Amino acid sequence: MRYWKPTRVPPNIDVSVLRLGHRLVRDERISTHIGLVSRAFGAKRLILTGADDHTADSIERVRDRWGGTFEVSYTKKWRDVVTNWEGIVVHLTMYGEALNDVLEKIRKDLGQQRNKPLLLVIGAEKVPREIYAMANYNVAIGSQPHSEVAALAVFLDRLFMGGELYSTFDKAKLRIKPSARAKEVEIANEN
Amino acid sequence: MRYWKPTRVPPNIDVSVLRLGHRLVRDERISTHIGLVSRAFGAKRLILTGADDHTADSIERVRDRWGGTFEVSYTKKWRDVVTNWEGIVVHLTMYGEALNDVLEKIRKDLGQQRNKPLLLVIGAEKVPREIYAMANYNVAIGSQPHSEVAALAVFLDRLFMGGELYSTFDKAKLRIKPSARAKEVEIANEN
Repeated sequence: MRYWKPTRVPPNIDVSVLRLGHRLVRDERISTHIGLVSRAFGAKRLILTGADDHTADSIERVRDRWGGTFEVSYTKKWRDVVTNWEGIVVHLTMYGEALNDVLEKIRKDLGQQRNKPLLLVIGAEKVPREIYAMANYNVAIGSQPHSEVAALAVFLDRLFMGGELYSTFDKAKLRIKPSARAKEVEIANEN
Repeated sequence: MRYWKPTRVPPNIDVSVLRLGHRLVRDERISTHIGLVSRAFGAKRLILTGADDHTADSIERVRDRWGGTFEVSYTKKWRDVVTNWEGIVVHLTMYGEALNDVLEKIRKDLGQQRNKPLLLVIGAEKVPREIYAMANYNVAIGSQPHSEVAALAVFLDRLFMGGELYSTFDKAKLRIKPSARAKEVEIANEN
């Protein structure tokens, strides 16, 4: 059996993540995971819906220590964000088309007309039904109930072909030295 | 750039997941995600530490409706589970060796001596330091803070080479028909 080798340099795709159906308090922790995964796996920004809470703070605190330019914002008008998106909209849901079948089509669409930006829509337990019609693609990461955090991570890992794990983040105050046995953290720029 | 094609039939690897450091109530939801991801992405069982709560119930309810034989158990002696493991122990942590470098080594180790079983150790925010020495491998899915749910999903997706997304689950009462636009669920064996 031949094994896949991750690409050293991820394809240059501009990804934003839109988190739908975030419920205050109850979803804070999962939405924070969504934000951190977005950042760590190569997306550029997260758009949260609903009222402002601690989610953005937690994510921005991580960015300020670990580097990079990941952005978090809130919108009260997610429909406008989706409708006005000048690029491809992909909704991750367990009811969609199989990732294994549809990823190359998405990749082709993104490549046409000078690299369109991708909006990844991530629902919570309930999503407004209309999003199924508004998205260009509804994509299932396996047709089993699991986790929107997992779905997001696997989608981005596949999209960026593993290359996102080689990324570095500018202006990091903290940086880990990968190690077989120890926790090694470099502290830089601490001022 | 050449793109990776998922394998149709995942490599036959017996994976158990050990969830460390689960704190009651606070971690229930994340631990439930850990369990559902384990099941959906091809692991066979989840071992929870700490006191019994609703986590096992939630996961078993999903298994009973969506099929398969995924097992959940509790242990008060996780050190014994790790020490007595007759196979390979992989600890997922942001401080470990890079997944992109180490996965093929793990694959080789597993293949030697008639397919050893794999124990995947997933910590919560705090993990006992000794696990770094007890594991055969400490593996980082990117050296950035993100989510243990994401780390688990990406590790399993890479390990099973995407083939786990083709898996079916026996005795399912509910089954989804993948669809570009609709939520289509087949109800079978409902009795």
